[in-house]
Amino acid sequence: MSGSSYGQIFKLTTFGESHGVAIGGIIEGFPANFELDLAAIQLALAKRRPGQSSLVSPRQEPDQVEFLSGLFEGKTTGSPLAFMIKNQDQHSKDYAALKDTFRPSHADFTYQQKYGIRDHRGGGRSSARETACRVVAGAIAAQALQQLGVQASTFVDQIGPVQLQSPSWSDTTQIEASALRCPEPAVSEQMEAYLKEIHAEGDTTGGAIRCMLKGVPAGWGEPVFDKLHAELGKAMLSINAVKGFEIGSGFSAISMKGSEHNDQFLANGQTLTNYSGGIQGGISNGMPISFRVAFKPVASIRQAQALLNAEGNLQTQVIEGRHDACVVPRAVPIVEAMAQIVLFDFYLRQQRNTLFNK
Amino acid sequence: MSGSSYGQIFKLTTFGESHGVAIGGIIEGFPANFELDLAAIQLALAKRRPGQSSLVSPRQEPDQVEFLSGLFEGKTTGSPLAFMIKNQDQHSKDYAALKDTFRPSHADFTYQQKYGIRDHRGGGRSSARETACRVVAGAIAAQALQQLGVQASTFVDQIGPVQLQSPSWSDTTQIEASALRCPEPAVSEQMEAYLKEIHAEGDTTGGAIRCMLKGVPAGWGEPVFDKLHAELGKAMLSINAVKGFEIGSGFSAISMKGSEHNDQFLANGQTLTNYSGGIQGGISNGMPISFRVAFKPVASIRQAQALLNAEGNLQTQVIEGRHDACVVPRAVPIVEAMAQIVLFDFYLRQQRNTLFNK
Amino acid sequence: MSGSSYGQIFKLTTFGESHGVAIGGIIEGFPANFELDLAAIQLALAKRRPGQSSLVSPRQEPDQVEFLSGLFEGKTTGSPLAFMIKNQDQHSKDYAALKDTFRPSHADFTYQQKYGIRDHRGGGRSSARETACRVVAGAIAAQALQQLGVQASTFVDQIGPVQLQSPSWSDTTQIEASALRCPEPAVSEQMEAYLKEIHAEGDTTGGAIRCMLKGVPAGWGEPVFDKLHAELGKAMLSINAVKGFEIGSGFSAISMKGSEHNDQFLANGQTLTNYSGGIQGGISNGMPISFRVAFKPVASIRQAQALLNAEGNLQTQVIEGRHDACVVPRAVPIVEAMAQIVLFDFYLRQQRNTLFNK
Amino acid sequence: MSGSSYGQIFKLTTFGESHGVAIGGIIEGFPANFELDLAAIQLALAKRRPGQSSLVSPRQEPDQVEFLSGLFEGKTTGSPLAFMIKNQDQHSKDYAALKDTFRPSHADFTYQQKYGIRDHRGGGRSSARETACRVVAGAIAAQALQQLGVQASTFVDQIGPVQLQSPSWSDTTQIEASALRCPEPAVSEQMEAYLKEIHAEGDTTGGAIRCMLKGVPAGWGEPVFDKLHAELGKAMLSINAVKGFEIGSGFSAISMKGSEHNDQFLANGQTLTNYSGGIQGGISNGMPISFRVAFKPVASIRQAQALLNAEGNLQTQVIEGRHDACVVPRAVPIVEAMAQIVLFDFYLRQQRNTLFNK
Repeated sequence: MSGSSYGQIFKLTTFGESHGVAIGGIIEGFPANFELDLAAIQLALAKRRPGQSSLVSPRQEPDQVEFLSGLFEGKTTGSPLAFMIKNQDQHSKDYAALKDTFRPSHADFTYQQKYGIRDHRGGGRSSARETACRVVAGAIAAQALQQLGVQASTFVDQIGPVQLQSPSWSDTTQIEASALRCPEPAVSEQMEAYLKEIHAEGDTTGGAIRCMLKGVPAGWGEPVFDKLHAELGKAMLSINAVKGFEIGSGFSAISMKGSEHNDQFLANGQTLTNYSGGIQGGISNGMPISFRVAFKPVASIRQAQALLNAEGNLQTQVIEGRHDACVVPRAVPIVEAMAQIVLFDFYLRQQRNTLFNK
Repeated sequence: MSGSSYGQIFKLTTFGESHGVAIGGIIEGFPANFELDLAAIQLALAKRRPGQSSLVSPRQEPDQVEFLSGLFEGKTTGSPLAFMIKNQDQHSKDYAALKDTFRPSHADFTYQQKYGIRDHRGGGRSSARETACRVVAGAIAAQALQQLGVQASTFVDQIGPVQLQSPSWSDTTQIEASALRCPEPAVSEQMEAYLKEIHAEGDTTGGAIRCMLKGVPAGWGEPVFDKLHAELGKAMLSINAVKGFEIGSGFSAISMKGSEHNDQFLANGQTLTNYSGGIQGGISNGMPISFRVAFKPVASIRQAQALLNAEGNLQTQVIEGRHDACVVPRAVPIVEAMAQIVLFDFYLRQQRNTLFNK
Repeated sequence: MSGSSYGQIFKLTTFGESHGVAIGGIIEGFPANFELDLAAIQLALAKRRPGQSSLVSPRQEPDQVEFLSGLFEGKTTGSPLAFMIKNQDQHSKDYAALKDTFRPSHADFTYQQKYGIRDHRGGGRSSARETACRVVAGAIAAQALQQLGVQASTFVDQIGPVQLQSPSWSDTTQIEASALRCPEPAVSEQMEAYLKEIHAEGDTTGGAIRCMLKGVPAGWGEPVFDKLHAELGKAMLSINAVKGFEIGSGFSAISMKGSEHNDQFLANGQTLTNYSGGIQGGISNGMPISFRVAFKPVASIRQAQALLNAEGNLQTQVIEGRHDACVVPRAVPIVEAMAQIVLFDFYLRQQRNTLFNK
Repeated sequence: MSGSSYGQIFKLTTFGESHGVAIGGIIEGFPANFELDLAAIQLALAKRRPGQSSLVSPRQEPDQVEFLSGLFEGKTTGSPLAFMIKNQDQHSKDYAALKDTFRPSHADFTYQQKYGIRDHRGGGRSSARETACRVVAGAIAAQALQQLGVQASTFVDQIGPVQLQSPSWSDTTQIEASALRCPEPAVSEQMEAYLKEIHAEGDTTGGAIRCMLKGVPAGWGEPVFDKLHAELGKAMLSINAVKGFEIGSGFSAISMKGSEHNDQFLANGQTLTNYSGGIQGGISNGMPISFRVAFKPVASIRQAQALLNAEGNLQTQVIEGRHDACVVPRAVPIVEAMAQIVLFDFYLRQQRNTLFNK
């Protein structure tokens, strides 16, 4: 109801503001008796951490996750898994000037309008720092999905005008070899060049991420409202700065013909093409799932802009602070985490359907 | 949990298969003492009905909605509003041949895999006939939203390669003047020409719908997961045949710069541009909301295709039945209904936040 | 949220007023591929129907349940099961006088206060007629539970001062042999004599029902809030006229000592005594579950009482209409239905916990 | 779904085991802009703390609550309020012997059966220590309810055979003047004498708590399933050791006549008697709410008992550890907290109903 929870059986509820005591969450519904690999969770967190290159925000936080409950001798007990990540590098003073000021294309104005109060420091609850909690839950879901044979490949597909021509399944090594998480080295270099240029201008750019999932068996997704791609879409659109989502053929389907778009069956139940993106009628069909997520350019730019204050006056200034030229590389683990949360929840939800099948 | 409900406070739960006794639903959470305009609900239903032109499916159903509860002397009582629409024009025999057969890019295969059983007649639960129930709930939400000053403009934006160049707010008269619900007469004619061509080939095409909402005050939407555009995205992606969703600048944001994309404030809190599409940080900002929905081409084509049967054999045939060349014109009231359901629910959810504001 | 739904995975949402078009509901979350015995559902409904003896309300309704969806060739499809029971014997005129009048210890006054409007005919939404929908869902859950080895014994334990001395497991034949559903013939006769006496006075009486469930394996119930007995308690207290609930030793535990109340283990994990009522820490322990439900006397009496009207005036009169001297015999199938709904839901909820147990 | 959450709009999700790192929770749905009195919350926690007299467990924990989010400059922001209470006085060694052993009438056996794993230290998740989190949320609800004019009086009604004869509204001073929270000094002394006797025997006893709430306006509670007393019942039955719940006349209604039990109206809408306990049809009627909760004797006794081990062997021994002779005095703040959580949630839920009332 309050908007801070995701999932039905496997459920994450997050809390925390950018410059408060801590961020964290409670994960409910995870099965008992599963040996969690805590190092893998920490590794996933490290991937979304700022400060990984000169092109992204230099905020250096260890982002150490502490589990408070739900584990016994390394295994899950079936009880809620609570965790927190303390906020340490809090330059709250940087933000003092913003207390009664609304930055363009930030959530300052809308939070104030909605609640009549807001923690303005570093964006408060609206900060992308909250997504670290999603990465923790995603990394836990990923471990369970791995046992079920599900794997993900998530990478940067486009930055500004520089786009991968033929995105295809890439393994972690290929993706992580690029500072920008783009598996095609030549394209990654072009992206980097573009980012440096933009950064030098004190500007920022948008980008896109593609996520592919293989090993998902046919049958996940709950029609009619909780279609698999509808939940994936919501999950992605709930990530900061996301402006669009498309599954399979996506927006290109608009100008296609049915005879061209229909995925013809093979005798084994697979299909020749995969315009459907692995989902028919909201239910996985056993083919790889593939979707793409569009991100807007970071709103924090190092250029003079007019800020609105509570009295309705506009004042032109350059906002100080730590900014990324493009969030997309750091958003890769967040996109993957949300996909894993959605998938694992649908795996659990699917259990009830077949209990009386012979 | 089962996927047949939408909304948190204002909640629609639907039931029914294409060729069963009836489809219908239960609407919970609507306030008491509201005088419902039943004729307006019936009118909304008429808009999504098949058989409106020679280019869409000739199935002729009165689609008469009957309310079973929750109304007393024309007013809502605060108790659940149940309704049903009887299925009358059931040519189930048309579908007998499909009992053990899976059509390409339909949900036949995935329903069978998910449940181990399916009502194959006319698509059963996966049929777009279910969306009539959404139109009923949407029409009820619309009446409440109208009292709150919220209005919608929803129209066809693109069919195949034919696209509106500068989509803008259009009133109902302009939209309904076009058989294809495209408010630009010249473009509507081009679309019609294209559809005739496609139809003659026994083929189908995709399309896109744009929805604009004005009068939404700042403050609706529940971060961090239930962001206003994330719920709108889920709602749209849950409609049959939808492959993509974008809010505001959408996919075009990928190649924009921050300095260009940021919506600069005016002194009154409005913004000069509206790349954000009326939403910042998942919360409405008082500017018009604007989003676009991509539909794939109808999977039912009048051309020979290979069908898969339960034994794993492929058999080429032309599927008989009633088919639309493009669903997009009929999907306009469905897109609008889902938007209204989402908005009214967020209005109700927002009530709790400000109870202790002075 | 609106209060008309029960259950988490197996979920019943009901609708309808006593004198509206119909009552009914949507059942979600039931597994696919289960062959439903529709006659057994109708039989369960017949048991709660009024008009079974001279001591209960003579309203004669066939209460024929019609399924609208979710069944295909006699089997569940995994999609929502919608059903309705038309209202036929509507003597709405009997209630015209009550339109602006509040009867003592009825829900007339509170519905009016809560919603500012109410359907006064026959109690509207507050009528016990709504419980017929619970019986339908309960009868469906019962069929699934039976396959899982769970059985129920539910009977009248007390009417007014006449009480069963040593309630024990009784089979359906024993229970149904008594018009009052009290399995001890001598006690049943005493109850009947007491009811006749009360009825002659134009008065009514309270009573109690005991429900026992065997075959529930250890492990059902979800701590910490959704303890098995907490959900059973809520389910029972949600039935019209219920004033109290106790599990196992119940209120008698207050004056017991720990050394006496502790259920000592046998080597097979069963216990010597069963003061716990089959539940420890909110989770079933494999012993029979046993609880007791207290009902208040029917508020509709054939005696002069002061009615309050909307203007704040009191007027003494005898309320006409069809009244039971005691609802408890007819409440037996309702208590059993709610217990079955709760148990089957917990069975489904327990599935997730053990998915990774070896 | 997982059972660790309570409430619909005002929602508490708890985590933590008795001897883990911390217990705590996330509170969602609390309105923004409310100035929280943190000292009052700490005071409520102090009331349920062990070690308050020689008759209760000597475990001495500061139980200091730390808020991690949702507060800004002392006021709520509308975002989730997360809190934790660190576990400090952990004598885990006391429990080492119990690792593979099940104590009679504890939750050891059922947790093991349910999850296939358990944190055995101090009862793990099943420990009453978890209820401290409920007290935190209850104290927050209480502050909001106080502004709405709602007040509570909660006290010990019975310990073993010693019972208050005519329980009536008592203020905090009267209640807290008694070490056992029984407002009648003479009865409190008798209770204390009985407890000493029981304690000397190494035994324990049951007890009962009464809770009264005044100032609740007519209209709270959501029929048909979420009746106000049904939710109160569930909330109370979810507290450790509770075996029964009754509202108003409760179990005494069984042997009453309708003519006697009906609460006759006064012209102002109040009633002469209050057998209904302030609730009709599941909705508050404006009269004081009054209910009673039955607790079983503490299962941990200082007497030799047979423990079952995982191999199915019984071994007689005296369990070491810290035990209360009766939990009821310490359960008073827990009962009150759960009542406040339920009431405040119903206040928020009621908001939607009347939005369109003139």
